[in-house]
Amino acid sequence: MKKNAFYAQSGGVTAVINATAGALILEAKKHKDIGKIYAGKNGILGALNEELIDTSKESISALESLKYRPGGAFGSCRFKLKDLESSEREYKRLIDVFKAHNIGYFFYNGGNDSADTAFKVSQISKKLNYPINCIAIPKTVDNDLVLTDCCPGFGSAAKYIATSTLEASLDVQSMAATSTKVFILEVMGRHAGWMAAASSLARKEKGDAPHIILLPEITFNQKKFLAEVKSVVKKNGYCVVVVSEGLKNNKNRFLSESATKDAFGHAQLGGVAPYIANLITDKLKLKNHWAVSDYLQRSARHIASKTDLEQAMAVGAKAVQYAVEGMNGVMPIIVRGKTKKYSWAIEPAPLAKIANLEKKLPKSFIAKNGMDVTPKAVAYLMPLIQGESFPNFRNGIPEIKELKLKEVKKKLKLWI
Amino acid sequence: MKKNAFYAQSGGVTAVINATAGALILEAKKHKDIGKIYAGKNGILGALNEELIDTSKESISALESLKYRPGGAFGSCRFKLKDLESSEREYKRLIDVFKAHNIGYFFYNGGNDSADTAFKVSQISKKLNYPINCIAIPKTVDNDLVLTDCCPGFGSAAKYIATSTLEASLDVQSMAATSTKVFILEVMGRHAGWMAAASSLARKEKGDAPHIILLPEITFNQKKFLAEVKSVVKKNGYCVVVVSEGLKNNKNRFLSESATKDAFGHAQLGGVAPYIANLITDKLKLKNHWAVSDYLQRSARHIASKTDLEQAMAVGAKAVQYAVEGMNGVMPIIVRGKTKKYSWAIEPAPLAKIANLEKKLPKSFIAKNGMDVTPKAVAYLMPLIQGESFPNFRNGIPEIKELKLKEVKKKLKLWI
Repeated sequence: MKKNAFYAQSGGVTAVINATAGALILEAKKHKDIGKIYAGKNGILGALNEELIDTSKESISALESLKYRPGGAFGSCRFKLKDLESSEREYKRLIDVFKAHNIGYFFYNGGNDSADTAFKVSQISKKLNYPINCIAIPKTVDNDLVLTDCCPGFGSAAKYIATSTLEASLDVQSMAATSTKVFILEVMGRHAGWMAAASSLARKEKGDAPHIILLPEITFNQKKFLAEVKSVVKKNGYCVVVVSEGLKNNKNRFLSESATKDAFGHAQLGGVAPYIANLITDKLKLKNHWAVSDYLQRSARHIASKTDLEQAMAVGAKAVQYAVEGMNGVMPIIVRGKTKKYSWAIEPAPLAKIANLEKKLPKSFIAKNGMDVTPKAVAYLMPLIQGESFPNFRNGIPEIKELKLKEVKKKLKLWI
Repeated sequence: MKKNAFYAQSGGVTAVINATAGALILEAKKHKDIGKIYAGKNGILGALNEELIDTSKESISALESLKYRPGGAFGSCRFKLKDLESSEREYKRLIDVFKAHNIGYFFYNGGNDSADTAFKVSQISKKLNYPINCIAIPKTVDNDLVLTDCCPGFGSAAKYIATSTLEASLDVQSMAATSTKVFILEVMGRHAGWMAAASSLARKEKGDAPHIILLPEITFNQKKFLAEVKSVVKKNGYCVVVVSEGLKNNKNRFLSESATKDAFGHAQLGGVAPYIANLITDKLKLKNHWAVSDYLQRSARHIASKTDLEQAMAVGAKAVQYAVEGMNGVMPIIVRGKTKKYSWAIEPAPLAKIANLEKKLPKSFIAKNGMDVTPKAVAYLMPLIQGESFPNFRNGIPEIKELKLKEVKKKLKLWI
């Protein structure tokens, strides 16, 4: 029996989450078991508020153009459904909306929280006797989902970080004789250092920048760090540091939150890069510059990794295939081939084994001194940034095609 | 009579300064009047220290690859020669080195300070009776040189800023329903707001991001700014702010330097973006994110403007032609055609009229409310970011070909 599908984007967006969405919608159109594909306006909130975007109103070329568009085209959200007991009202509402719109397929595109939500929806549908095929689709620049070899979105952020580190390093190298000696780049990663680790791909030879990589997995040791900066500057003339936003001190507090106050006595907002920069100015008297790439790194579709893009599209298409094959409570994950030449395939994995878990950098990926990554990490990371897939440019900037984003008529009462 | 040439890079580097260098060296090779082309190691310091890189040792393909390499391939420096009296020793040393190495052509690739130095060298060569053709070649992401329509390096930084603003705006737009409402991007520009203004090119339609552009030409009005942010968020759901690092308060002090102290009582280093972010958190209680692109924006060769690249190469080649034609104390400047369709040509302009002057955003380019630019500004800026010229990628990152950087044998005593 023909059922409609619901797709939602969840959590922090990436350069290629829309590529997943586009591939999913285009694949779903091929299956006669699937009727309309609705996208949640602002993620799962779209389901709760019955704000369902009818993707059948979009042209094929608009859907195809999604692969070039960063951000979340249908809107994402940070809204975590808790366990079945404390969020029972929300889960019931979801099922009500699914019933009202004959939705039999639920695709949730996000990280570990979203895998958890999809898992719970798959359970409650049994409990409430409303059959639905729940598929969580991986997405996160943090690369911290378990089981999958990597996460769509990460490879593109990694390529941006490696490229930016390389380019800025060439800049500071040329200025070092009379000016800036240390450059600090802050990248994302609250708990896992995958993005900071990716900066290692900027190197061609040993000794190339970045010279120091500070990971959230390793407690910041100020003394050791400053000694290393000093030594690198002495040897090279300049030093490039890449630091994870989640770097912590020995009191287990984020450095970016630590003791800085502004003139009004307010705690200074984030920015571990300026913190490190201040340290270097104060303790080493070395001129430095710092950058914080923030959203730029996760939305840099203009320099997306082709490998990442292809994987993002593959998980979207596979999710549909799994759903129509009757799978429930699974995630299409990326499995790396065992051959020396990089290869990958998509396989289903149970959400119960993914939900809420977090994959940090393994010890074998972290250098002995705690301020770099190992060749093993580089071997893992390198394939993920391969290939380019530049967008079209129009008037000098990437071309973004507009979507209609037409919502279907509401059938239920307002939900507050 | 055949004379050698000296070329040096000066001040902050750009994504295309090496394109100028490559074009200059390749052009010089065509002229029988020019012998060897020496590049100063770390800019003018290379001349003072008699550290002259012999570019004849580089392969043609290496010289051609310079157009893909950001930073300053020969090293740049921040070292200002003062007036002829106070820096007489330095000027004399320059002439000594030029004499020792039979240098008859002096090419200085930089901003307004460098134009001043080149101008003074052209004067002293007369005074000391050592004829030399001095040509200053424009380069600065700040776009603040007078007479020239624009400055090589600016168009590429502008393209990076417009693209980054667009991409990050799509990101925050998709998160705004439940999370980040305001995104702040800090760009370079201590005194002139050209780079902040370039973010306006991210817009397709009126009302698109960026919603607020804060320029160093306009004193920051906190009350007006906060009211505008509030109003934009109310209307759009989110607000994107681009702010120039050189934004000043009504006491004529940089906001980035203003009263923030860390826990040790040290003044907090730069970062007008975190300052603005804190204001928004404190006064409007709106969740926000901020980025500081710093060196990334001026070294982003991967997204260079083709127009900018072509102009950077053209000024390099023209500088050689002017020198062999016997010109002295001039700069090849970019002159915009008067036709509606954008066109440009290179013409010589006297350094006396360029040195030490600074071109800020004209009043007609700044919106009435002081927090945006006018359509006239957009019309000026738009042609400068047109076209792409992606580098080759190797192992997932831009390919950087190594240079030999072989120095010629010293002939003079050490200079300290």
